Amino acid sequence: MKKEIIVVKFGGSSLATPERIKNAALRVLSFKKKGKSPVVVVSAPGDTTDELIKEARSICKNPQEREMDMLLSTGEQKTIALMAMALSRKRCKVISFTGHQLGILTDANYSNARIRSVSSHKLEDAIKNGYVVVVAGFQGMTEDGEITTLGRGGSDLTAIALAATLSAECKIFTDVEGIYTANPAVYKKAKKIDIITYDEMLEMASAGATVMQARSVELAKNRDVSFEVASSFKCTSGTLVCREDKLLEELVVTNVTEDKNQIKITVVGVPDRPGIAAEIFTALADKNVCVDMIIQSAAKSTPEGKAVNSISFTVKKEDMEKAKKILRVIKKKLAAEDILIENKVAKVSIVGSGMKTHSGVAARMFSVLAKNRINIEMISTSEIKISCVINEKSIEKAVKALAEEFGL
Amino acid sequence: MKKEIIVVKFGGSSLATPERIKNAALRVLSFKKKGKSPVVVVSAPGDTTDELIKEARSICKNPQEREMDMLLSTGEQKTIALMAMALSRKRCKVISFTGHQLGILTDANYSNARIRSVSSHKLEDAIKNGYVVVVAGFQGMTEDGEITTLGRGGSDLTAIALAATLSAECKIFTDVEGIYTANPAVYKKAKKIDIITYDEMLEMASAGATVMQARSVELAKNRDVSFEVASSFKCTSGTLVCREDKLLEELVVTNVTEDKNQIKITVVGVPDRPGIAAEIFTALADKNVCVDMIIQSAAKSTPEGKAVNSISFTVKKEDMEKAKKILRVIKKKLAAEDILIENKVAKVSIVGSGMKTHSGVAARMFSVLAKNRINIEMISTSEIKISCVINEKSIEKAVKALAEEFGL
Repeated sequence: MKKEIIVVKFGGSSLATPERIKNAALRVLSFKKKGKSPVVVVSAPGDTTDELIKEARSICKNPQEREMDMLLSTGEQKTIALMAMALSRKRCKVISFTGHQLGILTDANYSNARIRSVSSHKLEDAIKNGYVVVVAGFQGMTEDGEITTLGRGGSDLTAIALAATLSAECKIFTDVEGIYTANPAVYKKAKKIDIITYDEMLEMASAGATVMQARSVELAKNRDVSFEVASSFKCTSGTLVCREDKLLEELVVTNVTEDKNQIKITVVGVPDRPGIAAEIFTALADKNVCVDMIIQSAAKSTPEGKAVNSISFTVKKEDMEKAKKILRVIKKKLAAEDILIENKVAKVSIVGSGMKTHSGVAARMFSVLAKNRINIEMISTSEIKISCVINEKSIEKAVKALAEEFGL
Repeated sequence: MKKEIIVVKFGGSSLATPERIKNAALRVLSFKKKGKSPVVVVSAPGDTTDELIKEARSICKNPQEREMDMLLSTGEQKTIALMAMALSRKRCKVISFTGHQLGILTDANYSNARIRSVSSHKLEDAIKNGYVVVVAGFQGMTEDGEITTLGRGGSDLTAIALAATLSAECKIFTDVEGIYTANPAVYKKAKKIDIITYDEMLEMASAGATVMQARSVELAKNRDVSFEVASSFKCTSGTLVCREDKLLEELVVTNVTEDKNQIKITVVGVPDRPGIAAEIFTALADKNVCVDMIIQSAAKSTPEGKAVNSISFTVKKEDMEKAKKILRVIKKKLAAEDILIENKVAKVSIVGSGMKTHSGVAARMFSVLAKNRINIEMISTSEIKISCVINEKSIEKAVKALAEEFGL
C-alpha cells in the first residue's frame, strides 16, 4: 500500500540548538508512526543566516550575489545533515538532499530566485525505498549548476513546492501556534483561527502579518496545496490554510492586522498631466522600493492657473533613505513643490473573505475608528481587505477596537 | 599569450578570521600582479571542522558518514564564498566552485574518499576568461552526485590534484615557514630547508612530521607536481618539494624528526609458525589500527620445548584502546603468554636521500645515541630513513644530538 506523504517544514528558531533539532526529529517520527512518509524541509539553524551575512559584510560591503548565495546555502546544508543524524539516532532510515542534489531548478536571479521546476524522481525513489527525506529549504540550482537562494521565506516556498510536486499535505512548523484574529501582543483576547482561505492569508501578508511571505501563499493557492501553520514547540493543532470552498461558513472579518513598518510620502504640486504617476513609481520600482498604498488627490489650480496634483503613497521604513534620494531627483525633474515625509504612521487592516458578500463592512470600520477619535490618513481596499493608514500612536487602540467590533 | 597558472592553497589557520581571509586574498593578488593566473584552494576557516564534528556528536554518537560529509563540506563552501568576496573587494574578477561544481570525482568512501578524476573544462574556461578561481578543498562528489570529503590533509590533496590537472606550479601556504631540519620547538638551531625530494618528504611524514600528509606528497610524486610549502603570514620563501634530479647536491641527512604519538606493543610468546604475524596484523588492519614499526625476535624454546616468538610493533597513541581490545581476542586465540604495552616511548628518525650512496649513516646515528646514554628499543630503516624507538623522556636530547652530529 502506498503511504501518504506529508511535507513538514521547520523554521530556524525550531532548529536553533541540538536539543531543538532532536525535538523536531521526534515530531517527524510521530508522523512516521502514524503510517505516513515524512519529507522534512529545514531552514538554517537559528540566526545562522544573519551571522553569515554579517561575516560577509565584514569582508566586503557589497558582496556579489552569486557568492552570497554560495555562502548562505551552507546554513541549510548544515541543518539537513544534523536533522538526518537526529533521525538516524532513533533508528530511522533517512537521507538528506541539498537543493541541487534534488534538482530544485531555479532562474539565475541570485538571492531571490524563482523555482522553475522540481524533478521528483530522486525524491520519489527515496520515499519508495522507505527513507525519510530531509531537504534543504531556501536553495536551488540553475540549469548551469549554480547555487541560488530563494529569498525571504524561501524555506516555506520549498515546502509548498515539494508538497505540490508530490501531491502531499503540508505542515509549516513555526514559533507561533497558528494564525490569530489579531496580534496577541497587541490584543490579548485574540483567538487562533482554525481555518482560513489562501486569499485571506495573502491579504494578511500584504497587510503586514509576518507569519508567512505572500509568495509562498501564492504558490500554495496556484497549486492548491492546503497547508497547516502550527507550533513546533506545542502539539496543538494550528491554522489550516486552504481553498475557499473548504470553509463551511465564511466569516465577514477573520483578522485584524497592524503594520508599523510604514512611512507616508507625499509629492506635493506636480503637474496634472498623464505619465506623472508612472514616472514617480517607475523610478522607485527601478531601485526596488516597494510601494504599498497610493492615493492621488483631485487636481487643483495654482495661483498661476496651472493644474497641479498631490500624490501620497506608503513605503517600508527601511526604504526611506533610498526613496528620499530618488524623490530628490524626481522633484527637480517634475518641478514638484515639495516632498513631505511622515514616519509616525501605521497601517491597520481587516481581512475576511465574507466581505465580498457583506456590504457595510468598510463603513463599520470607519465608524469604529471615528468613535475612538482616530483620524484616517489614507484608505485602500481590495475585495477582502480594507486598510487604513493612521497615526502610529493610535495603532494599538485601533486594533483592539476593531477586534472587539468584529468579535475576533 | 597564455598566462602561467599557479595553484595556491591556504590552510584553516590562514583563514580563521575575516582579516586573515583578506590577507590571504592580498597574497593571491600579488601572484596576479606578477602576471600569473591564480587558482586558490581553501580549507574550512579555523576550527570550523572540529566544531561541526562536535555539534554532530552532540546530536548522534555515531553519525552516518554520508551525513557527516554533507555537514563538513559546508566549512570549505563557506570559505570559498568569503575568499571570493575578499578578492572582488579588490576589483578582482573571481568565481568560486565547490568540489561538485568543479567535477572533482571521488569514490564513495565517505570521510576518506579518493579522487578519481578532475574534469578540467570548467576550470580552464574560467581561467581563460580571466577569472581567479577559488576552489573548495577537501571535498568531492561521487558519480551519483553524493558529496564526499577526502579525509585529513584533504585540501592539500585537492591543490596537488588541480596542479597536476592544470600542469601548474603549486604553493601550499601554512602556519610554518617551510620544512625544517628538525622541529624548531625542540632544536632551536634548526634551519629551514630550501629544497627537498618527494621521497624525503614522504619519509618525514611517516616519521611523524605533521606539515603535510603522506598521501598528498605521494600524489605529487606520482604526478610530478613540485610544490612549495611556505608561510601564509610572512613573505619569505619556503621549502620546494620536487623530484630528486632537480637537487644540485644531495645531503646525506636533511632532517631529524621526532614523533611522540607512539606506543609500543609486544605480543609475548606466540607459536613460531607461519601465519601468526599475518593473523595479528590483519586483525589490527581490519579495525583501521595503523601499525608503524614491526620487529620479530628470533624464536626461542619454552621449557616444554615449543618454539615461541615475541612480536613488537608501534601504533599511534589514539589507537591504544582499540588495539588492546583486538589483542585481548588475539591473545586467547594464539595462546600468547602476554601482551606488554609501553606508552612512554617516542620515535626519532633521520631522513636524507644521500643515505643511499653514503654508508655508515646508521652507525653514526646509533653511536650518537649511545654516547648520550639513550637506549634504542626498536630500529627500522628504509633506503633514505632510519628510525629508532627510544624512551620518551630522552627524545629532545636525541633530536639535538642528531641535529648537531649531521650539521642540520
